[in-house]
Amino acid sequence: MTTTGIFTPEALLEHWQGHRRVTRRMILAFPEDKLFSYSIGGMRPFSDLVLEFIGMAEPGIDGIATGNWSMVNDLPHHAKNNLPKTKKELLERWDNITEKINKSWQKIPAKRFNEMDKAFGQWEGPVYSFIIYWIDNEIHHRGQAYVYLRSLGIEPPAFYDRS
Amino acid sequence: MTTTGIFTPEALLEHWQGHRRVTRRMILAFPEDKLFSYSIGGMRPFSDLVLEFIGMAEPGIDGIATGNWSMVNDLPHHAKNNLPKTKKELLERWDNITEKINKSWQKIPAKRFNEMDKAFGQWEGPVYSFIIYWIDNEIHHRGQAYVYLRSLGIEPPAFYDRS
Repeated sequence: MTTTGIFTPEALLEHWQGHRRVTRRMILAFPEDKLFSYSIGGMRPFSDLVLEFIGMAEPGIDGIATGNWSMVNDLPHHAKNNLPKTKKELLERWDNITEKINKSWQKIPAKRFNEMDKAFGQWEGPVYSFIIYWIDNEIHHRGQAYVYLRSLGIEPPAFYDRS
Repeated sequence: MTTTGIFTPEALLEHWQGHRRVTRRMILAFPEDKLFSYSIGGMRPFSDLVLEFIGMAEPGIDGIATGNWSMVNDLPHHAKNNLPKTKKELLERWDNITEKINKSWQKIPAKRFNEMDKAFGQWEGPVYSFIIYWIDNEIHHRGQAYVYLRSLGIEPPAFYDRS
């Protein structure tokens, strides 16, 4: 065992954006009304889950790039400010964040990913672990939305296709 | 940008096993009959999804440790050989694989994770990417099972608790 690392910053960015592309196709696959309302077992509609992804990724990439973190209660999905209310607005916000992540990434020195920090003033760990958590959280809740779509008789996009 | 890596082999093992602990708690949370039969939208019961995780992890760790891969059609969940048929058998198989992964990991040189290989004779990429895919696949399908449990009125284990 050594401390050799196995995920480069470039590969991590591509991994994150690949998953974000799958999530974008999931948003597209939902009928507009179902996106904002459909639920099983009292769980949140997919739009609320997407707003959670946005609420982590959008302020999160700033925290990673600058070390200045928004506090948990100020995150968009908690503060309920300025949130997209239609599928079109949701996709626009999504695409803006895609650009923002790509641009911010170029300014992040490789050593930053292994620095210890406290995400959103609350969660301590190495910086890369925050991104891994956001990706995992997105996969987890998106998996939930696959059931929503199937139960509506809609074929979801392929999980393995990250193009 | 450099080629500095950001996930150590030790951290990747802990990440994988942390997710496998959440999945184990999900297996425990299912009533036995629902584990093998309950479905929404024509999707597979959770037991089938768990057998898929087993079918990747069990022969997969051998492929990673030795470079000798089982072929896709010979994987347990495809070949349908020697598969657990009760919750107890499923948990025993799960725990055996946990041990097997931990033991095998100690024999894997750090440089192995960045070598190019072809998982199960079919998927090309760096070795670490296979593990990332198995973890992602487990999170994805397990997210599906969270909906199954909620729709049965059962509180699932916390996603963020990897202990």
